[in-house]
Amino acid sequence: MDHQQLHDEALKYHEFPTPGKIKVVVTKPAETSSDLTLAYSPGVAEPVREIAKNPSDAFRYTGKGNSVAIISNGTAILGLGNLGPLASKPVMEGKALLFNRFAGINAIDIEVKHDTVDEFIKTVECIADTFGGINLEDIKAPECFVIERELIKRCKVPVFHDDQHGTAIVTAAGILNALELQGKKIEDCKVVCVGAGAAGVACSNLLLACGADKKKFFMVDRHGVIRSDRPQYNNGEKPSFINDAGPKTLAEACDGADILLGVSGPGLVTEDEVKSLAPKAVLFACSNPDPEVDPELVKRVRPDIIMGTGRSDYPNQINNVLCFPFLFRGTLDVRATCINLEMKKAAMNAIRELAKEPVPAEVVKAAQVDKLEFGPDYVIPKPMDPRLLKQVSRAVAQAAVDSGAATIPMPEHYMED
Amino acid sequence: MDHQQLHDEALKYHEFPTPGKIKVVVTKPAETSSDLTLAYSPGVAEPVREIAKNPSDAFRYTGKGNSVAIISNGTAILGLGNLGPLASKPVMEGKALLFNRFAGINAIDIEVKHDTVDEFIKTVECIADTFGGINLEDIKAPECFVIERELIKRCKVPVFHDDQHGTAIVTAAGILNALELQGKKIEDCKVVCVGAGAAGVACSNLLLACGADKKKFFMVDRHGVIRSDRPQYNNGEKPSFINDAGPKTLAEACDGADILLGVSGPGLVTEDEVKSLAPKAVLFACSNPDPEVDPELVKRVRPDIIMGTGRSDYPNQINNVLCFPFLFRGTLDVRATCINLEMKKAAMNAIRELAKEPVPAEVVKAAQVDKLEFGPDYVIPKPMDPRLLKQVSRAVAQAAVDSGAATIPMPEHYMED
Repeated sequence: MDHQQLHDEALKYHEFPTPGKIKVVVTKPAETSSDLTLAYSPGVAEPVREIAKNPSDAFRYTGKGNSVAIISNGTAILGLGNLGPLASKPVMEGKALLFNRFAGINAIDIEVKHDTVDEFIKTVECIADTFGGINLEDIKAPECFVIERELIKRCKVPVFHDDQHGTAIVTAAGILNALELQGKKIEDCKVVCVGAGAAGVACSNLLLACGADKKKFFMVDRHGVIRSDRPQYNNGEKPSFINDAGPKTLAEACDGADILLGVSGPGLVTEDEVKSLAPKAVLFACSNPDPEVDPELVKRVRPDIIMGTGRSDYPNQINNVLCFPFLFRGTLDVRATCINLEMKKAAMNAIRELAKEPVPAEVVKAAQVDKLEFGPDYVIPKPMDPRLLKQVSRAVAQAAVDSGAATIPMPEHYMED
Repeated sequence: MDHQQLHDEALKYHEFPTPGKIKVVVTKPAETSSDLTLAYSPGVAEPVREIAKNPSDAFRYTGKGNSVAIISNGTAILGLGNLGPLASKPVMEGKALLFNRFAGINAIDIEVKHDTVDEFIKTVECIADTFGGINLEDIKAPECFVIERELIKRCKVPVFHDDQHGTAIVTAAGILNALELQGKKIEDCKVVCVGAGAAGVACSNLLLACGADKKKFFMVDRHGVIRSDRPQYNNGEKPSFINDAGPKTLAEACDGADILLGVSGPGLVTEDEVKSLAPKAVLFACSNPDPEVDPELVKRVRPDIIMGTGRSDYPNQINNVLCFPFLFRGTLDVRATCINLEMKKAAMNAIRELAKEPVPAEVVKAAQVDKLEFGPDYVIPKPMDPRLLKQVSRAVAQAAVDSGAATIPMPEHYMED
């Protein structure tokens, strides 16, 4: 599809037959006046009284426990930047569609206008308990960090900024599987992360939590490697990545790197930098739709490299939809009060494991390829793989139970095999 | 159904087979990866860009235009009082069910916790533009007045407090039809309103806007008639109802009154007060589930009175569902920026007119009565009357167009007959 076609098709898709992509439907009988006696006055007073006595009864008598709010202020919409809350609505409704389609979650979008970061935080705090969980989306860095941190502190329900952690979980799953294929251990790797925004910070933190060596970890922003001798650019989350071990520029950092992760912008990595990576390196260029470096170029100059991108038309697509619907499914299923590191790692490991299993014929067919087999061109599962639902959700739920984040036991259907 | 039965049935209804009463479903194809290319990245960037250029395109490409948020802080839940936001969730989901069932509106509930009234207002203001309209619900007086007034000022979308105006519209429709049957004109009537809360204030304002004479209008709260010689109780909206023309107590006010409207609490009106009303009076006792005076008693001591209550098991049930789904349907259909007095009166008049039309057999049957014919026992339509949708919505939309509140013309389907 060329761009004009995509433009026309996408607008048609959103406009007809009814505007938007989601709607609300009634799940209980509402035909007779006796139905309405139960659904509304006077019958509805009964669940009201029960919840007033015991707040957790909201999970029994309302839709809270299977609902997620997708909340944005539109300050970092896709690759388009700050276009404001209203313009972000199609993305948030799209996210709601994915939550629904992949994990049966009742997700709705809420776009927040605000003057200050505090106002945004306060607004979300005030409405959070309506839902079973909060998915923050397309909020620009560095505000996204303080927003998520504060909301996690203030809300009783799990709060998760998908652009940070969803991206990190899927990226780390792909990188670790690729490393395994290359015969390397994360502990031994020189790692370079290009980009210090929401995704860069979260990916780096997760790779470090998975064993990456801080002494060999270099984060690069538009001013170069984050070092202590450039204090004017060391704000927000960046100081925790200061590394004075040597390289000052991206080119210097790339030299001999085992892992190069791009979560920045199109074309920022040069051919020479690719050539200078260590033998059997792993290169994930996640800028979308145009990666940090052309995958065709990488294949030509360094066929030993395992590469991932954000694109569906190349192997190893890093796509958050591999994670967030199932992460929230597992979280909601055990009414976890947060999404902790253990749960994120469990999601990551379940995604990794699934890539190593034989792939059902229908998944291969849907991917429009000849075969899918764990290897350089298939280090992570395909987004439409139906096995993700059970395997990732169950792993997350189990991790929530094991780590003490769950408030109810594992549901029985996870026990069947 | 006795109370234990209602308790059990209502809880069962809310809990099984899935908790709650509404869910979200996807309205567009979301099966193949090309579907997702349109629904989410990269296709979704197209409607985002269009809306950024032209905000009203949100109505073309998102669900905004057919959505209403039901927002409460749980400070005045049904007759139960202040039980907090979470406990109000079943009521708000019930309201969403009614919006959906009767008018096909995608309504979702949002429960707001807050410390100050300003915080509540700010929260709703920040999220309002997500939706096509805001229905405030179960917010206690007198805070509800300033909340609605401020939000109407600050929001681009219509804001409507149903406990005030929905109640007022349906009540006034019933009272005016009853007066017509009694052969009286509102301008000539002595009117007494018992209750000075959200409903009392709004009903009184609407009756005054419909021609009631302020000099013969007496509002009564728990301290008696609102007069200038009781200043310590004259706060909030009350001073605008000060009437020093004579009566000080409810009993004194009732003497010779043509209209007695109760929007207060059970049993507050005595047999003597009923007896003292003018010949061919109209008595609406709307406290729910127990009216201000027993309808059986009224029928016995004053068979000339036309009576309405909030109960479905007596004639002339004052039920907000006669109004709010259709009021919002008409408002959304012409993208009105507010719900003004003209639109409220149009809804009221459409409800009045419908009561005078012959009633379809299925409505009579559903009401479980022998006949429904405009008269003392049928002054307003039945809640499940399918004609309400077109007739009330169309009248509201037309009034929005005529009063300049609409931003698009009447949709064609309203033109057909």
